[in-house]
Amino acid sequence: MTVQRRIPLAKALSDVDTRQREISEYIDRNKDRFVEKLRILCQQPSVSAQNLGMTGAAQLVERFLKETGFTTESFSPTHGPPIIFGELLSKHGSKTLLVYNHYDVQPVEPVDLWTHPPFSAAVDDGRIYARGASDNKGNIVSRLMAIEAFQKVRGDVPCNIKWVVEGEEEIGSPHFAEFIAKYKGRLTGESAIWEFGGLDYDDRPLVTLGLKGMLYVEFKVQTALKDSHSARAAVVENPAWRLVRMLDTIQDEDGRILIEGWYDDVKPFTAEELEVIRSMPLEEHSIRDELGIKSFLYGLTGFEFKKAFYGSPTANIAGIWSGYTGPGHKTVLPSVARAKMDFRLVPDQDPARLAGKLKQHLARHGFEDIEVSLQAENPAARTPISSPIAKIAARAGKEVFHKEPVTLVTSAASGPMHYFTNTLRLPTVAIGCNHPRSNTHAPDENQRIDVFVQGAKWIAKVIEDFAKSSE
Amino acid sequence: MTVQRRIPLAKALSDVDTRQREISEYIDRNKDRFVEKLRILCQQPSVSAQNLGMTGAAQLVERFLKETGFTTESFSPTHGPPIIFGELLSKHGSKTLLVYNHYDVQPVEPVDLWTHPPFSAAVDDGRIYARGASDNKGNIVSRLMAIEAFQKVRGDVPCNIKWVVEGEEEIGSPHFAEFIAKYKGRLTGESAIWEFGGLDYDDRPLVTLGLKGMLYVEFKVQTALKDSHSARAAVVENPAWRLVRMLDTIQDEDGRILIEGWYDDVKPFTAEELEVIRSMPLEEHSIRDELGIKSFLYGLTGFEFKKAFYGSPTANIAGIWSGYTGPGHKTVLPSVARAKMDFRLVPDQDPARLAGKLKQHLARHGFEDIEVSLQAENPAARTPISSPIAKIAARAGKEVFHKEPVTLVTSAASGPMHYFTNTLRLPTVAIGCNHPRSNTHAPDENQRIDVFVQGAKWIAKVIEDFAKSSE
Repeated sequence: MTVQRRIPLAKALSDVDTRQREISEYIDRNKDRFVEKLRILCQQPSVSAQNLGMTGAAQLVERFLKETGFTTESFSPTHGPPIIFGELLSKHGSKTLLVYNHYDVQPVEPVDLWTHPPFSAAVDDGRIYARGASDNKGNIVSRLMAIEAFQKVRGDVPCNIKWVVEGEEEIGSPHFAEFIAKYKGRLTGESAIWEFGGLDYDDRPLVTLGLKGMLYVEFKVQTALKDSHSARAAVVENPAWRLVRMLDTIQDEDGRILIEGWYDDVKPFTAEELEVIRSMPLEEHSIRDELGIKSFLYGLTGFEFKKAFYGSPTANIAGIWSGYTGPGHKTVLPSVARAKMDFRLVPDQDPARLAGKLKQHLARHGFEDIEVSLQAENPAARTPISSPIAKIAARAGKEVFHKEPVTLVTSAASGPMHYFTNTLRLPTVAIGCNHPRSNTHAPDENQRIDVFVQGAKWIAKVIEDFAKSSE
Repeated sequence: MTVQRRIPLAKALSDVDTRQREISEYIDRNKDRFVEKLRILCQQPSVSAQNLGMTGAAQLVERFLKETGFTTESFSPTHGPPIIFGELLSKHGSKTLLVYNHYDVQPVEPVDLWTHPPFSAAVDDGRIYARGASDNKGNIVSRLMAIEAFQKVRGDVPCNIKWVVEGEEEIGSPHFAEFIAKYKGRLTGESAIWEFGGLDYDDRPLVTLGLKGMLYVEFKVQTALKDSHSARAAVVENPAWRLVRMLDTIQDEDGRILIEGWYDDVKPFTAEELEVIRSMPLEEHSIRDELGIKSFLYGLTGFEFKKAFYGSPTANIAGIWSGYTGPGHKTVLPSVARAKMDFRLVPDQDPARLAGKLKQHLARHGFEDIEVSLQAENPAARTPISSPIAKIAARAGKEVFHKEPVTLVTSAASGPMHYFTNTLRLPTVAIGCNHPRSNTHAPDENQRIDVFVQGAKWIAKVIEDFAKSSE
């Protein structure tokens, strides 16, 4: 950096352009090899929910990182697959960028809806079809491509890189806290890049600055040791009725959560965030068309629709079941009824406090016998719009894709980003090589190869600019 | 009968005793052969819900009836397995007794909980183990045994017998109305014997005089064409919430059904029925022990418990399901939610009228979009306590089992008995060879061989006494 100050500006800029072009050209020259690398990673199943292929995938990720120059460690939590931690020190740069990805994937079911077998990683029409091709293996290999380019072209990376690749993101990162607790002292740096990101429907680069939090609970109501013939319904309590009555106390028909104090800690959007939200693209018509619905809840539309989408705490019944659910009729009085609920949280709602409020709510309404098991507790994550890394990511996206970037104050989805933003206090942006028709979590998941390549250039540019930035 | 009046009473009674003893002795001598016959029928699967083995079972039943002297017809409804109708005319008796049974059985699942394979009909410890051994094949063959005894010992049956054996009882008799409509003119007689019955826990003979009715419905709430990521919960309607809110309008926490006019046509128990109910054994402790519960709904106990059990219309959630119901957590916003409900009815509630009231209720509460499909509609059935056949059955039970019989004004269960009591206007009693530990509808269903044999004698005595009775 100091060197640049001593040479004329035009020459310096031209050098920068040249150096960037070399990185881009390396990526273009080597893309076929990285497509093959991604295919190899995709052909290795890694379904965390089914404990399928996890060790093999972890080993493959660790090998890829090693091959790119990282020193690696495989951290084994008390249960579950390892978390791969890689460090790559810069010879000249002093700044440190953290990177988060995950090597686990969603289950492939229903398999019969896939055009290409989900672990074949077939290349067709400019895409790689595989479970995990987009979420999240495409991003892993795209980033590897960017980092290798620096290593091969310059023999160095512009900044230190600390890379965390976990294997349980798709099941709620149940052991990630263990890793953070142990590695906290080493997970230092100035900024971080989150796992996902990419283009919107108009091929504009998306820079996402936050995630909603989540409290995921399962309720169990048991009223007897075993099911009865429903002839007993006049005298034996039905747990499904009890569950229905309990659930109906949680939210009113206007979507307001009725648990006392639920909204106490909600931090409203700042004026700056609201301004960005106003400009954020969230196409009502595309969601309406996809779902075949005429309108949204409570008649939401426009700015109010976006504010609710990105800013409302929610209470969602993700699953409910009891009794006989097969074809035809069976007259059973069930002994057990269950429901799963995900509560999406916003800053600064604390999932542990809210879990307590939920239990108090149950007790207050006479449902203290209902078992509540907590299956996930993530607070929301939010990086300020004014963060240097947010600006670097947006500017780099514009340069690589030649389109005005879109900044998302937050996604409406959730994840463990709060470990980076809240625990490690790292400004964190989600950028990557995803595209909106990648069928993430669905059959025929795919990775567009052109975005995979351009995404690598975007990451490379962010690494370069981040390393140079003074903040 | 006239003959008997001309001979001295003692001689006549002695003759009657002798004649009865001969029937009983025939049954005892031939019981092993009938055990084998029952085993053959049990080894033939006939799971109506799965359309498994229905034709073979129907043919077997028809053959058995033919072998016992019946002329038979196999009635094929528009769909589903045939209904076997057999007629056996008495040479000397003029009265006609109708008999109802069913040859279909419940599914065998869960198979791994069976000690003996469910279609092996293994004989062990004085019992035949098989799906259907008790419900309802044991009763069919026990009755065959009684009728054959008359044929072989006397060359005649004391009265005409019209026997209906259907194949869809376990799935709600969806085509039985077709049979009744076509055969109504031929289904004439003075009384009828229903499919089930037998002994209570103290080996006392049970005479059951009625069944509750049933309205079985399935609700479907659909709010979108496909499931969404639950990140959309702030703006896209969740059908599970809508279902919960709707269900919570149907019944209050005291078990009162809130559908307008639901109780309008309820005919209270008569004073005579209440007197019998007071003496009816319904052991609270055995149900409490079986289910591991401390108390019953609303603190019901004693007479109030029995009145509710036998006399209350009920609204039971037999099944509810939506979204993700597997292990772990998945954040889905479902597009469809469903529930199955069985409403038990009492005299004189009309299921068709109540179905209309239910739909009006939904409309009144803003749930007119919720689909309601009717899966079964049976009114309640009730034979008066004072019916001659009720008295004959009780008296015969006492003679055969040497225990005071128990009359049940009604069962809390349901079935198509109303076709006999209401449509055909036949006083109908449920008696048979069941016993309370027969695991009906459960794994290890079994038929006690001693009750199977004694039940045949009971039926024989009822046939004899019915034929002789002047009413």
